[in-house]
Amino acid sequence: MEHSLPNTISLLSRTPAALNALLRDLPEMWTLGDEGENTWSPFDVVGHLNHGERTDWMPRAKMILEFGEARAFEPFDRGGHQREVQGKSLGQLLDEFASLRSENLRELRALNLRPEDLERRGRHPALGVVTLSALLATWAAHDLTHLHQISRVMAHQYREAVGPWSVYLGVLQCASHSSS
Amino acid sequence: MEHSLPNTISLLSRTPAALNALLRDLPEMWTLGDEGENTWSPFDVVGHLNHGERTDWMPRAKMILEFGEARAFEPFDRGGHQREVQGKSLGQLLDEFASLRSENLRELRALNLRPEDLERRGRHPALGVVTLSALLATWAAHDLTHLHQISRVMAHQYREAVGPWSVYLGVLQCASHSSS
Repeated sequence: MEHSLPNTISLLSRTPAALNALLRDLPEMWTLGDEGENTWSPFDVVGHLNHGERTDWMPRAKMILEFGEARAFEPFDRGGHQREVQGKSLGQLLDEFASLRSENLRELRALNLRPEDLERRGRHPALGVVTLSALLATWAAHDLTHLHQISRVMAHQYREAVGPWSVYLGVLQCASHSSS
Repeated sequence: MEHSLPNTISLLSRTPAALNALLRDLPEMWTLGDEGENTWSPFDVVGHLNHGERTDWMPRAKMILEFGEARAFEPFDRGGHQREVQGKSLGQLLDEFASLRSENLRELRALNLRPEDLERRGRHPALGVVTLSALLATWAAHDLTHLHQISRVMAHQYREAVGPWSVYLGVLQCASHSSS
């Protein structure tokens, strides 16, 4: 399946409302529970998404358009959510996610990217040469990887409670392959 | 973590709105794409959730309260979503999910279950003796297993489009352990 910019934008524009509907005012067992030491709760994940909105996706897209392969992106700080979440409630983080995402999509649309722009190349500090198209597709898939993680982390809280049904619940067989 | 009935109800009451926010009017690439032969699209998953609302959770809860271990539940038909989805749009399925779930939660609340009721036992046709508590916890975890599946199936559509970033996206490393 090729990358489709309209389909990417459609998905990116829905994630904040989906997380809001799922998580806002949900009991803290679900939102603050994690999978053990050095793992993230849904609350942490929303902080991480906000950190990505500020430092990852659109800043990198603009770097590709401005500098091409000449300058590597700033490495993304996977611990950056710790500053993002400090002193904030989940409700605040969800509000910020909606507003950061909406502003970023406004900027993205304003770029009026043509198919040939999507083929423009930049330099990832670890992965090497990457296209703008792959960066934008990854932005959408990154939302999905964290929705996948949130559903897994939440299900983990009921690992014992479901009793013998655990064998039928795929999410409880999922290895922790998307901790970040 | 023990089962908490209020926490189960909190989660169950949010899933329809979360799926609605994520999926309604999303391009068909996302909602009808699956993971290959004999796998489910997000559209199919919503049909399966509706089938569960009609035939699985509350009917089984009521059987436990009425018959205890004396009568085994009807086996759940994992192909039952095929009839559920026939001739329907995703929008219709999402509307039905919201209304079936809301009616089932109204019935569940009306049972006024006490802690000792949650310990009552029934008989699963394959798993043997199970408690009402585990059944209700599984209802919530089952929502999460399918949210986990939907995010994985959607991410699969961009497996190629993300280029070298695929190595960082946990959801793309997830084996298909929740096909149903």
